[in-house]
Amino acid sequence: MVWLQKLFTTKTETDNNTLSEHSGERDWVTVDPKMFGNCKIFFSTNQSIDVYELEELCDSVGWARRPLRKVRKALQHSYLVASIWEFRGARSYLIGFARATSDHAFNATIWDVVIHPRFQSKGLGKAFMRYMINKLRSNDISNVTLFADPQVVDFYRCLGFIPDPEGIKGMFWYPE
Amino acid sequence: MVWLQKLFTTKTETDNNTLSEHSGERDWVTVDPKMFGNCKIFFSTNQSIDVYELEELCDSVGWARRPLRKVRKALQHSYLVASIWEFRGARSYLIGFARATSDHAFNATIWDVVIHPRFQSKGLGKAFMRYMINKLRSNDISNVTLFADPQVVDFYRCLGFIPDPEGIKGMFWYPE
Repeated sequence: MVWLQKLFTTKTETDNNTLSEHSGERDWVTVDPKMFGNCKIFFSTNQSIDVYELEELCDSVGWARRPLRKVRKALQHSYLVASIWEFRGARSYLIGFARATSDHAFNATIWDVVIHPRFQSKGLGKAFMRYMINKLRSNDISNVTLFADPQVVDFYRCLGFIPDPEGIKGMFWYPE
Repeated sequence: MVWLQKLFTTKTETDNNTLSEHSGERDWVTVDPKMFGNCKIFFSTNQSIDVYELEELCDSVGWARRPLRKVRKALQHSYLVASIWEFRGARSYLIGFARATSDHAFNATIWDVVIHPRFQSKGLGKAFMRYMINKLRSNDISNVTLFADPQVVDFYRCLGFIPDPEGIKGMFWYPE
């Protein structure tokens, strides 16, 4: 997994490619050709997100559809919107996504982590989470949290997330 | 606990009292005189918060001090800042506080819930949390979450919060 170690030394460039429909800084990921072939992949925290493309990505992992109006609002009001892109034939395709809400000072909570099935189980998700954590920590956010479905608790554990630290319980409100 | 049932029928008024150093809408709470004497108490979601007064309140429950610059930033970037005030001698005193981060669409997470020890164990905290949940739900936020210390898990359970629903775990990131 050489590419994971190299991740944070990747070249960041500003997109001036008028052929691409997305604009913003790209953090190119050095990937293992044995796993990814000749894929060109980059991470970003400021690429504009097309909600239809995001819905397609969420469809690919079987998530329930959500009102696009609310998705758009949630994107606008997320502190960090991070995405993974495959660059192919002068176009970028959304293959991963996550976002975080925050008070910009102490706490950030990561939501909606999704990786296209074609790119799962190759270490890309872990690198992407490290990228997000790195962004949050570099902005002086001390407390990074999330709510993990049972099947991904171990995935997050590998990244340094602890469930119920010191007995602190994640709780969800349900109408009484 | 008549006053709890009456809570959401309390009179809301806009503060035009120039003697008060705080401004904003007040949701007056009907309290049981047996428990509260002749205290006049109101909730608000738009009273301006003096960070020094907030630190004093946090001191009263033994919380660690935090940089005021960051506290100020966190208040600015919280979706909901709710407070409880005792109105006494034409002045309002901060006796309770909580805030929520949110994406303004799907999720809200409640942080920093504090009630002055003098006003604890009288049902005020529960009424205050119901007030917050009501505000969030009336803004069409479907998912209200929090991270509860072990000693307050039952407090939140009474309010309709479920720990680890369907095995979803609250997780905190710690440096690897």
